[in-house]
Amino acid sequence: MLDEENIVDPSHPRYNSLMIRKKIADAGVKGMLADSAMIAHGRGEAYDYLLGERTIPSAMIATKEAVARLVNAERPVISLNGNAIALAGADFLTLASQLGCPVEINIFYRTPERMGSLIGHLKMLNSKLELDVEILGGIPDERIPGLEGPRGACQSNGIFNSDTILVPLEDGDRCEALVAMGKEVLVIDLNPLSRSSRKCTVGIVDEVTRVTKNMIQLIPEKPNVSDFDNSKNLQAALDHIIDNLSDKFN
Amino acid sequence: MLDEENIVDPSHPRYNSLMIRKKIADAGVKGMLADSAMIAHGRGEAYDYLLGERTIPSAMIATKEAVARLVNAERPVISLNGNAIALAGADFLTLASQLGCPVEINIFYRTPERMGSLIGHLKMLNSKLELDVEILGGIPDERIPGLEGPRGACQSNGIFNSDTILVPLEDGDRCEALVAMGKEVLVIDLNPLSRSSRKCTVGIVDEVTRVTKNMIQLIPEKPNVSDFDNSKNLQAALDHIIDNLSDKFN
Repeated sequence: MLDEENIVDPSHPRYNSLMIRKKIADAGVKGMLADSAMIAHGRGEAYDYLLGERTIPSAMIATKEAVARLVNAERPVISLNGNAIALAGADFLTLASQLGCPVEINIFYRTPERMGSLIGHLKMLNSKLELDVEILGGIPDERIPGLEGPRGACQSNGIFNSDTILVPLEDGDRCEALVAMGKEVLVIDLNPLSRSSRKCTVGIVDEVTRVTKNMIQLIPEKPNVSDFDNSKNLQAALDHIIDNLSDKFN
Repeated sequence: MLDEENIVDPSHPRYNSLMIRKKIADAGVKGMLADSAMIAHGRGEAYDYLLGERTIPSAMIATKEAVARLVNAERPVISLNGNAIALAGADFLTLASQLGCPVEINIFYRTPERMGSLIGHLKMLNSKLELDVEILGGIPDERIPGLEGPRGACQSNGIFNSDTILVPLEDGDRCEALVAMGKEVLVIDLNPLSRSSRKCTVGIVDEVTRVTKNMIQLIPEKPNVSDFDNSKNLQAALDHIIDNLSDKFN
């Protein structure tokens, strides 16, 4: 049980943020997350606060671009870690179903217990949503070149042979390694300065549950791929934060 | 044990930040922290990253001012929560010893187990450092007006009758309630926009372990109290962040 459960009142000005936090805490109790997951979530909360806890225009542009690349891909895949599954597991399965692609669990601190808990949770959601999305990651048979240890493990019928990969909340090393494999790497990350945001093909600076909801709406529109400038779009996110911080006390 | 323990290498560019994170994770395992403590720590990490993970000039000005108010106070007290104790318990005891004042444990989610764990940890540090700092908070006999529930509990010989209070990592409600009691409230908070930073007497926008080390150095200098403008000083911190975010991608 989350300590602050009793203070989450729908009239609270930060109700959504507190409910999202609760999902992470509950998943932690279920053994789905590494110790560092809550710390990572807290970092995200801080950046989201600076963005105003809403989808800013540059984030919507990046989201549309990511959807365009996913619907036009030959072998798209959605890579999921513990936080992504805890926060938006059902939405990611819906997205995968819309795209006709698999999801693959690929976690930084891989243990059999955590993998089992995450696979079980996604299977439960698959059944609840009456979907039949392929859930990969349990039986890795390939490696992401340049990544040592269990975090480099992946599947040949998923991440390894994909051409386009959606990676919410990815660490910088793995993002760079996926780019080096020649893939289009679409990242969801609230920190516009993170290595993942800077090194990927399309960086969406937005909160993951807002992004999945936007993507589910956008997929039926089948947007076209454009000449996207990731750096320019990230600077727009930074400029939005700068505007929010300027002359607060003058 | 912390999952990422094995990746904390002293040559890592963010070694200090990772070691600080480890202290929080270890304290969590010991039962010293609420579920939300790691999330709060993550928020702090994000703001510290934006500050450049160092004491910026406006933070040093605020630290000196806080030290001046503490050394000139009649009944100073240091209020400690779980994260403050986990991160800098020994340094806070050293500070209290220098000031000849008590520390009082005052936690948001109060349970007998957590209080016991925190008091035990401070007693162990007291003994290890050969100090005799009074540790309050275990037997509350007064209430902070306007705060409901266990988080309002305090001691008459500590927080309740203090004139000046150092509150690292305080929540906004309690900061406002302490100011309303007529106290000088000195806050350590990495978020210059938090309610605690905005509502307190002196807001130090800096990481708690850096602040305590600076304070321990400054106390023997016995600085004088000045005409401190908290809003102006917070805007200086925001302007520092703005500078760090400007033209990153151009």
